[in-house]
Amino acid sequence: MPYCSTFIATSLDGFIADRNGGVDFLEMIPNPDQLDMGYVAFNEKIDALVMGRKSFETVCGFDVPWPYDKPVFVLSNTLREIPEEYSGKAFLVSGKIREVLDELEHRGYHRFYIDGGKTIQSFLKEDLIEEMIITVFPVLLGRGIPLFGELDNQLEFDLVSSQVYLDQLVQLHYRRKRST
Amino acid sequence: MPYCSTFIATSLDGFIADRNGGVDFLEMIPNPDQLDMGYVAFNEKIDALVMGRKSFETVCGFDVPWPYDKPVFVLSNTLREIPEEYSGKAFLVSGKIREVLDELEHRGYHRFYIDGGKTIQSFLKEDLIEEMIITVFPVLLGRGIPLFGELDNQLEFDLVSSQVYLDQLVQLHYRRKRST
Repeated sequence: MPYCSTFIATSLDGFIADRNGGVDFLEMIPNPDQLDMGYVAFNEKIDALVMGRKSFETVCGFDVPWPYDKPVFVLSNTLREIPEEYSGKAFLVSGKIREVLDELEHRGYHRFYIDGGKTIQSFLKEDLIEEMIITVFPVLLGRGIPLFGELDNQLEFDLVSSQVYLDQLVQLHYRRKRST
Repeated sequence: MPYCSTFIATSLDGFIADRNGGVDFLEMIPNPDQLDMGYVAFNEKIDALVMGRKSFETVCGFDVPWPYDKPVFVLSNTLREIPEEYSGKAFLVSGKIREVLDELEHRGYHRFYIDGGKTIQSFLKEDLIEEMIITVFPVLLGRGIPLFGELDNQLEFDLVSSQVYLDQLVQLHYRRKRST
């Protein structure tokens, strides 16, 4: 079985980007020592990332080197190809989520970092998210791109831990509660 | 100046009631010792409650004795009168929020517990909330009555504390960040 996790920051009102699609709020709390807040440890445990086209294009637009050391599978039914410069780093996948995961499993990937609002929402709709690490920033954005979306069924989680970083950020770590 | 606070529980996806208006999720974590999670201390610091008609009617519908020992001001422009049995406990107020608060201040009330989704949202729109104590339950409801709504402007807060109750609930305590 694939194991899908998220590691994401949100505003207190649940937005992962503001009304203009920007993420300036991530800079609101100074982080002079570049604390990674558990990201490095999280990244070590995954085999690959899965994100949507929008998140991929957002990352491509950042004025920083390619930030991932694991393969990034870009889930899109509209994108025709991955731009040349990301060849060998990002790979296009399309189709139904479970089929995509099956195929990636066959190729040896088992632990996935699911990124991007729409993609996380799609995975939650299929109840495929096992772990969520959510870092809550102390701001109400009032409008923006929401982390969570509508679900047909409620999903219960177990709180694994809650940790404060930089005196202002609360990182919530949840694991899907499965009846055994 | 009035001092307005909230003390409220939400699902992880920010709902204060489920798609049917119910709050069954508040019972998902057993609380055998009836831990009050700071409510008693919070209640001691307020002079009165302000809630909307819907919250008032919800509380009236609960199969428990009237739960408040402070005056409850029911903000409504449609309700004609408070039912006889709540006379002396709940009081109808109407009009614009700031005017209502001004009047209550004149009557000697200064610290208000603002309750109910719509009412909290209205107060936030006017940037009148100074403190928020939010207890996050480990469930995605997927749909329901949201705690937060649209805002024209972002509102920054300071994290006062974060505390875990019953191993599963994270209580976030924020104070509005004001430039002085």
